[in-house]
Amino acid sequence: MTDTLSKLAELIEQRKHASPESSYVAKLQHSGLNKILEKVGEEAIETILAARDVEHGASKDKLIYETADLWFHTLVMLAQFDCTPSQVLIELERRFGVSGLQEKAARG
Amino acid sequence: MTDTLSKLAELIEQRKHASPESSYVAKLQHSGLNKILEKVGEEAIETILAARDVEHGASKDKLIYETADLWFHTLVMLAQFDCTPSQVLIELERRFGVSGLQEKAARG
Amino acid sequence: MTDTLSKLAELIEQRKHASPESSYVAKLQHSGLNKILEKVGEEAIETILAARDVEHGASKDKLIYETADLWFHTLVMLAQFDCTPSQVLIELERRFGVSGLQEKAARG
Amino acid sequence: MTDTLSKLAELIEQRKHASPESSYVAKLQHSGLNKILEKVGEEAIETILAARDVEHGASKDKLIYETADLWFHTLVMLAQFDCTPSQVLIELERRFGVSGLQEKAARG
Repeated sequence: MTDTLSKLAELIEQRKHASPESSYVAKLQHSGLNKILEKVGEEAIETILAARDVEHGASKDKLIYETADLWFHTLVMLAQFDCTPSQVLIELERRFGVSGLQEKAARG
Repeated sequence: MTDTLSKLAELIEQRKHASPESSYVAKLQHSGLNKILEKVGEEAIETILAARDVEHGASKDKLIYETADLWFHTLVMLAQFDCTPSQVLIELERRFGVSGLQEKAARG
Repeated sequence: MTDTLSKLAELIEQRKHASPESSYVAKLQHSGLNKILEKVGEEAIETILAARDVEHGASKDKLIYETADLWFHTLVMLAQFDCTPSQVLIELERRFGVSGLQEKAARG
Repeated sequence: MTDTLSKLAELIEQRKHASPESSYVAKLQHSGLNKILEKVGEEAIETILAARDVEHGASKDKLIYETADLWFHTLVMLAQFDCTPSQVLIELERRFGVSGLQEKAARG
């Protein structure tokens, strides 16, 4: 698997066994599920507010940045349950009838 | 570009010009930014609650399903501003030093 | 106890034993904690979006309306655990050194 | 007006003119609407997670504490628009046909 989300998921998986002091991801993983879910909620709110800001003239960079934060924290959440972004993408493919690399990865 | 998120973004882009009666995506896009942002927020809450359910023994399928809903509605939000999932993935690559297909797509 | 929140909490308490068809509150209570918490989350998002709308010239009525929705759904949530608005107000009094009718009610 | 929420609203009003260093409320008010709305969203998430914790055996104190945080931050938000808790309570009275001290306050 070569795509960005899968590589990021691998990186998150590796940090699970790292010291909490070694990285933000490791610290977040050690702080427990509630803290991770709080972050998912916070980043969703920040994404929503950034979208309203763009609507009123702010740069789109902030929206991209906050969406990246939101997606990243959902990956950390998924990793807590040994779930992968591929599973989410396969669900989206199934639902919308699109298919791509993920489908091949699931077959492979 | 061959990956799932990009294909889904293309599909969302096409529906922008469709009748609101023709699909859920078209209906959502016609209902305006606030409605789309409400959905992003709702799906974030449902994802959080699903994660707590899995922690207490529920199937992981619900978490995958809700996360797919959340990602999908962020794609609809991004499309409102002519932003793409590639931009978000490039931001994640930049931040975490991972790279993959998206990087190639950005160069291409 | 004579204040609005306490009267509303009493009304919610009474509806706990009503048929789900009889009122919105009864229906919500029968639908379970997750549904109530989803509503708390949704109303928080709608309140936030209403505040941004007011900032950009919309009427304050919508903000008042959405905040009422949010507070109301937190009361339904509290009632699920046999908690009362007085307990929340006493916590606020304790924290900020204000006191009022709730304090008398707690003593009485 | 004698009730807790109104007293707290008065206190928040007074802090509007205070130095940001003088109190948490003054600091929050100086940080702007987006920061206040982020806090409303965060406290809603924390309230939801606390409710799920109580369902699984945690003390109700956390739920009371988080709900107090949520209500408090909505008061700070209302104050940004010169709105008062009385307006929210009057809306709730109107909607549910309950009446109390707030009604008197509105008439007075």
